Amino acid sequence: MRNLTEKNLTQAVLKRLEKTSDPRLGQVLSSLVEHLHGFIRDIEPTEAEWETGIRFLTAAGQICDDSRQEFILLSDVLGATILADAINHRKPQGATESSVLGPFYRDGARQVATAGSIAENTPGEPLIVRGRVATTQGQPIEGALLDIWQSAPNGLYENQDSHQPEMNLRGKLLTDGDGRYAFRTVKPESYPIPNDGPAGKILEAMGGHNRRPAHIHFIVTAEGYEPVTTQIFVENDPWLDSDPVFGVKDSLVVDFVRHHSPEEAAQLQIPNPFYTVDYDFGMVPAG
Amino acid sequence: MRNLTEKNLTQAVLKRLEKTSDPRLGQVLSSLVEHLHGFIRDIEPTEAEWETGIRFLTAAGQICDDSRQEFILLSDVLGATILADAINHRKPQGATESSVLGPFYRDGARQVATAGSIAENTPGEPLIVRGRVATTQGQPIEGALLDIWQSAPNGLYENQDSHQPEMNLRGKLLTDGDGRYAFRTVKPESYPIPNDGPAGKILEAMGGHNRRPAHIHFIVTAEGYEPVTTQIFVENDPWLDSDPVFGVKDSLVVDFVRHHSPEEAAQLQIPNPFYTVDYDFGMVPAG
Repeated sequence: MRNLTEKNLTQAVLKRLEKTSDPRLGQVLSSLVEHLHGFIRDIEPTEAEWETGIRFLTAAGQICDDSRQEFILLSDVLGATILADAINHRKPQGATESSVLGPFYRDGARQVATAGSIAENTPGEPLIVRGRVATTQGQPIEGALLDIWQSAPNGLYENQDSHQPEMNLRGKLLTDGDGRYAFRTVKPESYPIPNDGPAGKILEAMGGHNRRPAHIHFIVTAEGYEPVTTQIFVENDPWLDSDPVFGVKDSLVVDFVRHHSPEEAAQLQIPNPFYTVDYDFGMVPAG
Repeated sequence: MRNLTEKNLTQAVLKRLEKTSDPRLGQVLSSLVEHLHGFIRDIEPTEAEWETGIRFLTAAGQICDDSRQEFILLSDVLGATILADAINHRKPQGATESSVLGPFYRDGARQVATAGSIAENTPGEPLIVRGRVATTQGQPIEGALLDIWQSAPNGLYENQDSHQPEMNLRGKLLTDGDGRYAFRTVKPESYPIPNDGPAGKILEAMGGHNRRPAHIHFIVTAEGYEPVTTQIFVENDPWLDSDPVFGVKDSLVVDFVRHHSPEEAAQLQIPNPFYTVDYDFGMVPAG
């Protein structure tokens, strides 16, 4: 394995990979090498350009911390996350479509009771989110767990914002015997994804904006069913057709209905005016 | 740009890239997206695997510091560096072949006089390196600058080793009127590339070793000529045919001749026994 040239190099690297002990890892690394080399052959990077790439990746790694995951952002803005998502969730009619997890998920949200609030004194427009978790045939699923998170109306998740209480606007909720769930929160707003790092530079260079249409994240799990990671989007948000992470699907765009009724508000124990959104999740049997 | 699926997603991302203001960056990003998506379509990663990839890249970025560049190592062990190198240095017969820069280069080595030493009290076998810098037609090039670096016989570069003086085993040297250069150092030994980070994990998974064959690095620059980044390797090193970074070429493998002659040693002001190596660099006009 000497005197490797443009012509024989890729084959030589693939040959070395034949000794990889884990067959799946060998397959992944072989494909990586083929595509990485294909990329290099396509663009013929100068040495300065390759060095720029190295520095770019290093900066992405170094900006990551407990509340920042730049490689997820990069994967999102290059359409890689939503492609992997589509491949992993080839779903039948009636099943809830999935969308990207995003970089702001945190495990460990507190459990809230049905109709409880995930917003601790967060200024914003009051919102009730409610619906059912059911099979694609409409059979209710009891005890399904909804793990919910969203940004505050200021556009920041609690772990980006020292002014919000720990784990604010995050919650876990179980469905009742009819598969029903309900929780109170504040209406989400569109927000910019962080543009002070490498992923932001890519977005800026692409000439697009960095505003994600307003949404609420969900991971829905139920024993015997495939977990669903998704988002519901606010109908009429101006950024729905140019989501920088390519995550919007019509089936996930939902009408957030405005109510102006002191009586209804009093009954629901929520300030007037308020919003409601009804969304049902369709689950697919596991395996 | 909604409802993107496996089928239409890649085209949608490429379409968005059409607005990229810098045409070269647009070309690079488009090729990146095509190959990244191609990689994902090939391997169909599970969500857990994609997350492993994200964590892998993050760990690579976070292990980088002033004396550690993990993405260069990764590029090296995947054959990407040497491929980019080959593409950038398509050279005529007689020109010195190039090899990888590696992650341990530092600018700012001190200048040494002809026949001066770059090793400050470093234990090891004394070595004189000497030769000429010339055109491929053999015309000597005066005032060519050789920027030299190597590891100590313990396998560590000075910036990996707190026991070595700052900038030890690094030096800059100018050729004389006959294009000649000469410097004293210690004979290099093979050494392991760092295996405590993500690049090491890849190498380990590949089932190969991580020892680079013994070598000395050079960057040779001369006004009017293309710079040469290369390495010379010690003939008969056991790792020449399995270099983990694919960098060995026959034209760069050189006989390190052992001398046992108190007279010659005294004349050269070097301890006996000692080694000499003669290597001539062939430069190509710039442009």
